[in-house]
Amino acid sequence: MTGEPLYQQLIQEWITLIQNGVIVEGERMPSVRKACKMHKVSPSTILMAYRALEDRGYIEARPQSGFYVKKPAAALPLPRMRRQSVASPSGEVVDTIEAVMTAQAMEGYIDLSLASPRGSDFYPTTRFKHTLNRLVRQHPELATDYPFPPGSERLRRQIAQRTVSWGCVLSADDILITNGCTEALQLALRAVCKHGDTVGLESPTYFALLPLFKSLGLSTIEIPTHPDTGMSLDALEMLLSEKRLNAIVAMPTVHNPLGSTMPLDAKKRLARLVNDYRIPLIEDAPHADLFYGASPPDAVKAFDTDGWVLLCSSYSKTLAPGFRIGWLAAGRYRSDVMRLKFASSLAQPRLLEETLADYLETGGYDHHLRLLRRHYKEQIDRLRGFVATHFPGGTGATAPSGGCLLWVELPGGADTLEMFRILLAERITVVPGVMYSARGRYRNCLRLSGCYPWTDAYQRALLRVAELARRS
Amino acid sequence: MTGEPLYQQLIQEWITLIQNGVIVEGERMPSVRKACKMHKVSPSTILMAYRALEDRGYIEARPQSGFYVKKPAAALPLPRMRRQSVASPSGEVVDTIEAVMTAQAMEGYIDLSLASPRGSDFYPTTRFKHTLNRLVRQHPELATDYPFPPGSERLRRQIAQRTVSWGCVLSADDILITNGCTEALQLALRAVCKHGDTVGLESPTYFALLPLFKSLGLSTIEIPTHPDTGMSLDALEMLLSEKRLNAIVAMPTVHNPLGSTMPLDAKKRLARLVNDYRIPLIEDAPHADLFYGASPPDAVKAFDTDGWVLLCSSYSKTLAPGFRIGWLAAGRYRSDVMRLKFASSLAQPRLLEETLADYLETGGYDHHLRLLRRHYKEQIDRLRGFVATHFPGGTGATAPSGGCLLWVELPGGADTLEMFRILLAERITVVPGVMYSARGRYRNCLRLSGCYPWTDAYQRALLRVAELARRS
Repeated sequence: MTGEPLYQQLIQEWITLIQNGVIVEGERMPSVRKACKMHKVSPSTILMAYRALEDRGYIEARPQSGFYVKKPAAALPLPRMRRQSVASPSGEVVDTIEAVMTAQAMEGYIDLSLASPRGSDFYPTTRFKHTLNRLVRQHPELATDYPFPPGSERLRRQIAQRTVSWGCVLSADDILITNGCTEALQLALRAVCKHGDTVGLESPTYFALLPLFKSLGLSTIEIPTHPDTGMSLDALEMLLSEKRLNAIVAMPTVHNPLGSTMPLDAKKRLARLVNDYRIPLIEDAPHADLFYGASPPDAVKAFDTDGWVLLCSSYSKTLAPGFRIGWLAAGRYRSDVMRLKFASSLAQPRLLEETLADYLETGGYDHHLRLLRRHYKEQIDRLRGFVATHFPGGTGATAPSGGCLLWVELPGGADTLEMFRILLAERITVVPGVMYSARGRYRNCLRLSGCYPWTDAYQRALLRVAELARRS
Repeated sequence: MTGEPLYQQLIQEWITLIQNGVIVEGERMPSVRKACKMHKVSPSTILMAYRALEDRGYIEARPQSGFYVKKPAAALPLPRMRRQSVASPSGEVVDTIEAVMTAQAMEGYIDLSLASPRGSDFYPTTRFKHTLNRLVRQHPELATDYPFPPGSERLRRQIAQRTVSWGCVLSADDILITNGCTEALQLALRAVCKHGDTVGLESPTYFALLPLFKSLGLSTIEIPTHPDTGMSLDALEMLLSEKRLNAIVAMPTVHNPLGSTMPLDAKKRLARLVNDYRIPLIEDAPHADLFYGASPPDAVKAFDTDGWVLLCSSYSKTLAPGFRIGWLAAGRYRSDVMRLKFASSLAQPRLLEETLADYLETGGYDHHLRLLRRHYKEQIDRLRGFVATHFPGGTGATAPSGGCLLWVELPGGADTLEMFRILLAERITVVPGVMYSARGRYRNCLRLSGCYPWTDAYQRALLRVAELARRS
């Protein structure tokens, strides 16, 4: 047991103090040393709690001085994560996914659902254009030779080097290039699970995982997940000790849809648990590079002693959604996933792999990420402000640690699936909460995307969502 | 029951007559009308038999005149398809696949294994280069927007139109773009089968299918397959009537590795069988456009009345191996495969889809195919001649109806897995026969590729294979 519950308790306590005006705007927070003594915890716990408050806009760090209270961008309570057990057949979830997907692919919709903006303005398109032109001229065989797994060595080397910023020590040989993070997850699941197995996952979880579990004949157990600190490790440990899980899927850094990031101690504990119990953990991290902090936090994989963590990510949320390039560092399952990739889809187009590798080699990705993070942070703050102002009283929302997604919890009897249908008919797409649970939970929740420019059309669409929310 | 056995009997009879000099070079074959009377079969059976003899180089058609005996390019008997039941654990097959795959991906090997040549000379690379440059300049969003299934409508329309030459009537909506034919097969299998099901397949079959069956928890029954006419439909019908199959996978047009193409009547019968028994047939056709005839024969899908045939193919063997673009027309499983694609790997890069669509729209593919077919036909004739001359007596080889692959059956006790290991150490790759059967059959067989230019290095490698074959 670590101080996980205490850490959350501390954060909640301070938020209450700030929200109730006990500690006021501009006031200095207790020094770390003082707070340690007060709460009888380690300096690192205090620091992490302060960082979490900072990420959520309650306090700010001033160099050489300490942490000061600032006016929160929007005084929204966190979702209470009530688990409404509305009966919702999984067929309904799958149908909804299909409706969202169809709408996302169509023109003329106001999209509040995608986790990645349309249009080329957000990405280094000009660089890609030049590199593509040069590569296809100098190496036409990139377009014609049969590619084989594990994919471009040059790209794998770049990916391995970049995982250093996540605290990992990986080599090019550890990496398999996949068709986006989606295929990385699919291959990882097929490598570690057999038909009839049970997988532990966060609740809510990434919706595309649910039909995947179903198609592979896997059962799931949904583990309570805190909107700030992620999966409850106490609940997980209980399941592990009862031998009820064959594998775990988690998004410990910038969770989709919650935007939560597990504290470092929790990540260490999670790595220890899966290594002790010898249970594979699929660490799904496509949004991790969009963590708002100056540098992304360590991955669980960073603390993986015996190769039980399979780390999945991609460049689809950060750099080149159209390239369909993801990757998988599968630890002890390395050769299993290679074989599965060979038999399941062979490999990705070399030309695009080399274009991406070229971009990563010559730098610029970090600068690009900084701009994207800042942009998303601003958008999310604005979106939270909008929700606080226009949504009905009793609405909760996440305070994401990164990315461009906001999880909104409406009061009691709201039915976001019904809202989704009304909005779809008006050519507006949101993602209803039921899609994030195999059990049909979260019927009063929805995911909004803040990745788009704050245009009039976007605001009008948001106002319409708010109007329906107030009516429900 | 159709005339299938009679048809084969006829072909075999005529080959014997020609090989024994009863009908000599330059002599005219009986007219179709006369042969009908002699053998009491329909004109179409006689015509098909003559076409088969023509494809195998025994006779030639002269316009307005009839069929004449020509000296066969190489008087090689067909493989007898002995089914050696050498115990070979499936792990060995998987390891071998991995060794072949690793070697194929490496530089400096003399490759006699790949079904698609390296290097850009065989493909319209210049056209691709110009189109890629233009598209990325005019539509940079193709490189950055998130793609969704079913993939580019423009490409799907082209694919649907081209299937007319296979006798199919499909629309763009029937087509799902996949990561090569490999993923089309994978999705089709996952859509039609559940864990524990049994799949009927040809023996030998495409080797990458075997680990796929294993990973999906599927059992297989290997159905006797004739090197000229394909899967035995009598055997298949027996299995179907005994309700022992949940699905079938077959390569009715230009089989890999045999190069066989089912006669049209057999294809009709196969379509009737799967529709009558309501059992899905996955029709795997990546080599079909490489059929040596002037136009490709009808697919089984052409006779599919109720949507039980799932047709898979790609452009990897004919046009753009580096693009990783395949497709799947899944009939009644259309929405199932869409959902699986969404959850398993989402979609393919739009930029490459549009580049391919552009090429297909503006024509040139048919001309390109004619050149490729002629080239492969010449190479295969040459390869058959080489085998007839240099391999030990008692060696058999297929007479492919298309493609660039030759299946060679060595006498009795030969062990091509051992040969493969020796050759691999000498940096030569062939594909050993055991890889084509889950039961470890075909240990005395190997697949040679005729897709490469007939260079000195290529010939030296072939001579080395022949030397090992004579020694075994």
